[in-house]
Amino acid sequence: MAEKRGNVIVGQSGGPTAVINSSLVGVYKTARDRGAGKVYGMLHGIQGLLEEKYVDLSEHIRSDLDIELLKRTPSSFLGSCRYKLPEYSDKPEVYERIFEILNKLEIEFFFYIGGNDSMDTIKKLYDYGQTIGSRIHFMGVPKTIDNDLAVTDHTPGYGSAAKYIGAITKEIIRDGLVYDTRNVTIVEIMGRNAGWLTGAAALASCEDCEGPDMIFLPEVDFDMDSFLGKVAKLQEKKKSIVIAVSEGIHMSDGTYVCELTDNVSQIDSFGHRTLTGAASYLSNKVASTFGCKSRAIEVSTLQRCAAHLSSRVDITEAFQVGGAAVKEAFEGANGMMITLKRVSDDPYICVTDIYDVHKIANVEKKVPREWINDTADYVMPQFISYIKPLIQAELTAIMTDGLPRHLVLNLK
Amino acid sequence: MAEKRGNVIVGQSGGPTAVINSSLVGVYKTARDRGAGKVYGMLHGIQGLLEEKYVDLSEHIRSDLDIELLKRTPSSFLGSCRYKLPEYSDKPEVYERIFEILNKLEIEFFFYIGGNDSMDTIKKLYDYGQTIGSRIHFMGVPKTIDNDLAVTDHTPGYGSAAKYIGAITKEIIRDGLVYDTRNVTIVEIMGRNAGWLTGAAALASCEDCEGPDMIFLPEVDFDMDSFLGKVAKLQEKKKSIVIAVSEGIHMSDGTYVCELTDNVSQIDSFGHRTLTGAASYLSNKVASTFGCKSRAIEVSTLQRCAAHLSSRVDITEAFQVGGAAVKEAFEGANGMMITLKRVSDDPYICVTDIYDVHKIANVEKKVPREWINDTADYVMPQFISYIKPLIQAELTAIMTDGLPRHLVLNLK
Repeated sequence: MAEKRGNVIVGQSGGPTAVINSSLVGVYKTARDRGAGKVYGMLHGIQGLLEEKYVDLSEHIRSDLDIELLKRTPSSFLGSCRYKLPEYSDKPEVYERIFEILNKLEIEFFFYIGGNDSMDTIKKLYDYGQTIGSRIHFMGVPKTIDNDLAVTDHTPGYGSAAKYIGAITKEIIRDGLVYDTRNVTIVEIMGRNAGWLTGAAALASCEDCEGPDMIFLPEVDFDMDSFLGKVAKLQEKKKSIVIAVSEGIHMSDGTYVCELTDNVSQIDSFGHRTLTGAASYLSNKVASTFGCKSRAIEVSTLQRCAAHLSSRVDITEAFQVGGAAVKEAFEGANGMMITLKRVSDDPYICVTDIYDVHKIANVEKKVPREWINDTADYVMPQFISYIKPLIQAELTAIMTDGLPRHLVLNLK
Repeated sequence: MAEKRGNVIVGQSGGPTAVINSSLVGVYKTARDRGAGKVYGMLHGIQGLLEEKYVDLSEHIRSDLDIELLKRTPSSFLGSCRYKLPEYSDKPEVYERIFEILNKLEIEFFFYIGGNDSMDTIKKLYDYGQTIGSRIHFMGVPKTIDNDLAVTDHTPGYGSAAKYIGAITKEIIRDGLVYDTRNVTIVEIMGRNAGWLTGAAALASCEDCEGPDMIFLPEVDFDMDSFLGKVAKLQEKKKSIVIAVSEGIHMSDGTYVCELTDNVSQIDSFGHRTLTGAASYLSNKVASTFGCKSRAIEVSTLQRCAAHLSSRVDITEAFQVGGAAVKEAFEGANGMMITLKRVSDDPYICVTDIYDVHKIANVEKKVPREWINDTADYVMPQFISYIKPLIQAELTAIMTDGLPRHLVLNLK
């Protein structure tokens, strides 16, 4: 029998991933196994908590089957938010309210599953907690398909998104070869400033597939003339061309390619612009320049919610970081985030570690320039060695009546 | 030992599907098992044949593993075409050339895997063959994700596309629920004139998912004011709204919704316009009308090439229609297409039959009006009963290094 511990609360924040709920059950199960009192789940993250919206997770995760289903359920089970905590100096009442609610629930351990912005929340709550001598432990659990979190070797959610992108890029390449006519396909992949996801298109290059012809990441400025010149050169050699571009590719003056279109763009509450349309713009450009068939494919939402094709390594690691966060917090850690530390590529060995969340929050990790080729139109072998272990193996979907089954929160 | 038969040639035509290669192996394996001589595959359909581009399939399908891989390989293994045979009176030399090549190869049986347009090819070749007293048997093997072929209960390729659409619609709905804010997602699904694929979004309505809120098929005229009124009404009740629309939805005056945008549209060689942009247009309309977040998701190419999530029923039936075409042709059938005939829904029993290709070519089967609800914004239970058996069960992917493995034609 584990030592009796205090109450726990866990929240999910930021964009969803295919495996974010595996981290949730990692927190839940480990907390229960290690003697936690109540394990609460905040609804829609810190934003819901502020409105006292939370559930007792034991009423919603009731069996081992529920745990297995949650591992296979995409998008945040508890709901998420993009709420940015104000500075304490600007709105002290927000902090006082949060701690009032946490104290009422007798919370001792606070876990927040998220990316850069969510780690900012952990950092601020920890800092405030220290000033008032709170006994609550604040821990970050890493999550993002973008893989742009600092310090950690990679981030849970990335492996599954990468596997999905690799698999569908193979299918798209096959599809492009079907007609004996010149055609260009531009695949638009998420990644505002970091090209981790777009680079994953290179996984399609394997024994039974030639892979994409070019890959453009946002780490290097995009040059339209050079791009068109390269397409012209490729067309001398082959009929079907597939090019992967990041949604965030931009010219040297900072203009995003997608801004060259008339598409409406939106700003989220963290001030990030919604960027889509780069592929569509380039596809029209290619069609008009070369008079050939061209099409744009936005991989869109599916890359972050395609639980039907997720990586078992990723699901397992997502669970592990949740569990490790509980273990570390129960052993005294506070104001930290769990990281993944790669020991070796082959055989792939990866362990968890912890790191000061202050050095992670709001920092964006980009693809190193040396992992992109000199001509800035493909990734280097180091990139492939890095990513390949993360997409290995599957977790068989639990199918009901022909479709993957999920666990959903039923609030009646 | 099977009776010795003549040579066989098989081609794939029109848009690819996730299971079109299962029909190819159905033809190949059955022809071999039943004593065929050579089994040739035309490259890029009749268009490639005219340039004498073909392969001896036994050099490319060399093992049982190859057959299993082909069943799981999306997009036409042999390549496809959208070549429309001219009328004999316009270009007799095309027919003479085709028969010259077929005779040189000593072909006795000609199989063409395709949809409406491909059946037009079978019909014309059969008719010409009759006039010259040719001994070649021409048989159509049905294939299309669009499910718009006449006479047959359904068409191989449709079940897998429907399963994919059902599964990703569930994932998209989950994704839409993640933030506690008003948002509208418009999912654009293929289907120029027939709403079979778009209606498949209703499959997402099941025990663990509420399904899409509205579904608009091209069979009924689309009314913009009524649409916006319905969105307003839904927003009174819920925050996250998901709407499926067919790419081919149009107003009562015939204008396609996608034509309301500035997008470039293209015409294929059968005179069909490429229609995309309906979701994008509606999404912008919703965002500007209601001031809420809205996004468009084009399911795009993936719905016809997502072999990574195909239906076992569909793969099996695709194989069966290929096999049945060979059996019937070897027993004397000519100028016919194999059809699927449903015996019962529950238990699902479906057998193959044959039908005169003249009555199938160029005819488009649409969703019956009584399978669409009175308000023309959802499908009726009959639609669901019809489609559900077609998406059942899976064929486990053969994974290599984390990605689905395919068989590809290697011409060196």
